[in-house]
Amino acid sequence: MRYEELTIEGRNAVLEAFRSGKTVDRLFVQDGCKDGPVQTILREAKKQDTIVRYVPRERLDQMSETGRHQGVIASAAAYHYASVDELLERAAVKGEDPFLILLDGIEDPHNLGAIIRTANLAGAHGVIIPKQRAAGLTATVARTSAGAINYTPVAKVTNLKVTIEELKKRGLWFVCADMGGEPMYRLNLKGPIGLVIGNEGNGVGRLVRETCDMIASIPMKGEIDSLNASVAAGVLAYEIVRQRML
Amino acid sequence: MRYEELTIEGRNAVLEAFRSGKTVDRLFVQDGCKDGPVQTILREAKKQDTIVRYVPRERLDQMSETGRHQGVIASAAAYHYASVDELLERAAVKGEDPFLILLDGIEDPHNLGAIIRTANLAGAHGVIIPKQRAAGLTATVARTSAGAINYTPVAKVTNLKVTIEELKKRGLWFVCADMGGEPMYRLNLKGPIGLVIGNEGNGVGRLVRETCDMIASIPMKGEIDSLNASVAAGVLAYEIVRQRML
Repeated sequence: MRYEELTIEGRNAVLEAFRSGKTVDRLFVQDGCKDGPVQTILREAKKQDTIVRYVPRERLDQMSETGRHQGVIASAAAYHYASVDELLERAAVKGEDPFLILLDGIEDPHNLGAIIRTANLAGAHGVIIPKQRAAGLTATVARTSAGAINYTPVAKVTNLKVTIEELKKRGLWFVCADMGGEPMYRLNLKGPIGLVIGNEGNGVGRLVRETCDMIASIPMKGEIDSLNASVAAGVLAYEIVRQRML
Repeated sequence: MRYEELTIEGRNAVLEAFRSGKTVDRLFVQDGCKDGPVQTILREAKKQDTIVRYVPRERLDQMSETGRHQGVIASAAAYHYASVDELLERAAVKGEDPFLILLDGIEDPHNLGAIIRTANLAGAHGVIIPKQRAAGLTATVARTSAGAINYTPVAKVTNLKVTIEELKKRGLWFVCADMGGEPMYRLNLKGPIGLVIGNEGNGVGRLVRETCDMIASIPMKGEIDSLNASVAAGVLAYEIVRQRML
């Protein structure tokens, strides 16, 4: 299997990518570029809620593979994103209680890939990531997922808190991983559940944490602060698997 | 905290490193180099059981930071290794049953670092790695361990199977992670224990597996083959933590 990083360069190519409905993760625009064609691209980006970054020309030159970026480079997802509904449907088709893993700002593509891999093997029905400040489905993620990206759908949402609130109305319970919570072994993690994993450095954001029903802690016996984010996700996901098997 | 990669270049420097008792992880010698000084270095390497690799001159030129390698480059551990006895002593001092994590050929330094981090937080008393075909304590490992390398000792042994046999005589039970074993939740993982994690691609070697008392399997519900090695280590280590807390 080959995974390709999709970098799209040049005004026509980038505009075409947007218009063909391709999911663009990030749009890089040269500082000061404000002419007509660039405005048209920016309008398309806005429609799709794409993250736009203004960068110096030197940065674009470095990123460019063709040397002909004309001031715009788009970085497209190597993989398609699913909708949150598709994730729930996957659970319904299997006749299982939904089990979703939500990532509150995982930035390291290796962690994202490892978590998608874990989600697949732990029987989770999908992964939800936010649009802002998070790794997207790049070639590195695909590779690190060891193929899981082809089976376990990933949905990208604008606001994780809003998504959690909507899913709570549909019967899911949310548990977030954080220090100072209840030891995970003592919580009831059966039934329809969303597991929320925080950012590598800062953990789960306050607003998201307050929206969750439970805070689960992994017992920490050592001298250092925290587990690697993908290891923590694995340990918690498998506590859910254990409780579901009882 | 700063971690330095210790690359020692040139005949005198390398010989001095050996004679001062520094742990050299790997010795790189230029193909065809067989003169007196190189023979002396090779004798020291043999005494220390250091892995020797013969490589083309171009490879040494690439590795060299000074440009004056004179046909020999040694790669030294950024951290000291402990002895297996020191690991057991750490358990004794804490008044706990020994809990060791043995890695049968983990090659990716990021995995080794993440596992040392997990070992620290799961309350394991140390990590044992083999000399051959395995990542050593490099700067990358130190960084990925998030500081755990300063607290959780790592011992390096010549033959993992022999070490396991010796530790069995001292009362430890060994469980290895592999497919086709008993689901880990059903095994009794309390008491003095060694957890054996296999290589990223090939799992636990046959001889090592046959020396273990139990084979534990992580339930796999997905389409792909296996978890990331450091995630698998985390999931199993925390099953041991859970059982010890009961």
